[in-house]
Amino acid sequence: MKIGIVGLGLIGGSLGLKLQSLNHTIYGIANNEFNEKKAKEKKLANYVSCDSSLLKNCELIILALPINDLISPSERLVASIPRKAIVTDVGSVKESIVNKWENLHPLFIGSHPMAGTEKHGVNSGFEGLFKNAKWIVTPTQNSDPNAVETISDLIKSMDCEICQASPKEHDEAVSLISHLPIFLASALIKTAYTKNNQSLLDLTQNLAATGFADTSRVGGGNEKLGLDLAMNNQINILNAINIFKNKLSTLESLIKEKNWELLFNQLAETKEIRKNFIN
Amino acid sequence: MKIGIVGLGLIGGSLGLKLQSLNHTIYGIANNEFNEKKAKEKKLANYVSCDSSLLKNCELIILALPINDLISPSERLVASIPRKAIVTDVGSVKESIVNKWENLHPLFIGSHPMAGTEKHGVNSGFEGLFKNAKWIVTPTQNSDPNAVETISDLIKSMDCEICQASPKEHDEAVSLISHLPIFLASALIKTAYTKNNQSLLDLTQNLAATGFADTSRVGGGNEKLGLDLAMNNQINILNAINIFKNKLSTLESLIKEKNWELLFNQLAETKEIRKNFIN
Repeated sequence: MKIGIVGLGLIGGSLGLKLQSLNHTIYGIANNEFNEKKAKEKKLANYVSCDSSLLKNCELIILALPINDLISPSERLVASIPRKAIVTDVGSVKESIVNKWENLHPLFIGSHPMAGTEKHGVNSGFEGLFKNAKWIVTPTQNSDPNAVETISDLIKSMDCEICQASPKEHDEAVSLISHLPIFLASALIKTAYTKNNQSLLDLTQNLAATGFADTSRVGGGNEKLGLDLAMNNQINILNAINIFKNKLSTLESLIKEKNWELLFNQLAETKEIRKNFIN
Repeated sequence: MKIGIVGLGLIGGSLGLKLQSLNHTIYGIANNEFNEKKAKEKKLANYVSCDSSLLKNCELIILALPINDLISPSERLVASIPRKAIVTDVGSVKESIVNKWENLHPLFIGSHPMAGTEKHGVNSGFEGLFKNAKWIVTPTQNSDPNAVETISDLIKSMDCEICQASPKEHDEAVSLISHLPIFLASALIKTAYTKNNQSLLDLTQNLAATGFADTSRVGGGNEKLGLDLAMNNQINILNAINIFKNKLSTLESLIKEKNWELLFNQLAETKEIRKNFIN
């Protein structure tokens, strides 16, 4: 298939490499001439250009852009997408993107691969990124069934596991397991940063080990992504924070009241529950 | 040196293996005959017994017991420790243990290795556990300087980095970087466990990826340890939870008020701060 990829960062670049290995012809759009040159060197696509008219013969187009560029796409990009092409995106929120693009293009289907690393940019893509990843497809009642099938088949061909949900369900689920952890980790880092007590701060920074490193990891990630998620999944994230605060307050009360039996049961319960989330 | 180790689980067993490799003679005390047999098979010590009178000729004794067994030690154990032996422990809280043992033994010095794995029990020890670990020694004004020096030298000989703090400072620091994360992770798991919405729960369990796995990891740990920490570091943990709730509420307000510039700055700041905690 002739496949266009708009954006050649971690996700777009990895897609370009993987889809070429499956014998598709890839037309990649870079955001500037420096990245165009890099993308050509790294062979992220068969053809690379900053000019989106390169997409004119593509049958399927993947928009691998930051969330805000998906919600406010350039007119030039929209005009460059052939009306007959099937279009998907790979953004981490779905409702606002799908609402926008269903009005822009008849064959748009939202999707979201659960894959990533700490890196970003044109040097970060690699062919194995999607191996065994979950990939959520979010069709609506407006979606063309053939377009859903084509995109799903393409995703499966990349060794990914398809999962279907409405855009609304998707955004609610990721607010709990993916967006909430970012804000918890950020608040944890702030808590440990006792800047008014330098000797305690020296000690905590010296002692912090794997438990702190893991629990705080996603609080050390790309602040632009964290902001985009808050902007575009605001209500679900606020709801998740609210539920979390209640759960934490329950534990706090048990500790305050020295209700050790119930605290033990809660910790034992969450240990068991966690196993259902982690493969 | 003739060294006694009371308790041959993950920490005690690993100590036994490491200290034998440094040509010390190790006298290990197991808590039952089954573990005694296992410890002998695994050669965790040169001599192993359930009878603590085995300690009678030891010059240095390491108490590698659960926190509650350190705070309420058996009379038999206390009576078996030679008055001339230097004694330390490896518990994750220090103030309550040091208070207890300074009254029981003239040459007691508290300590805490920042090392561990998810495993526990007589089969879990391994010689490399302490390599490059931080190890906090917590002397007080009552501590014998020679005893502090002897224990510090022994710890350094195991390729560990010594760090000194008062028992109170230790407990405050670990409440922030080690104990608080356990309760956050537990509350996060409870938040994602939307048991009144099965379809959402199915989706979140299906989608949970590395971010959720890492942030929630310590919430999947030993509930007995979590309980012991809450029981023995109650005030510091409650204080840490309280500070955390304020930090989270700040982020919540910024998201609610759509104060995107300040939210971006906060996320960028915690990304930078985190680097000082993680080597």
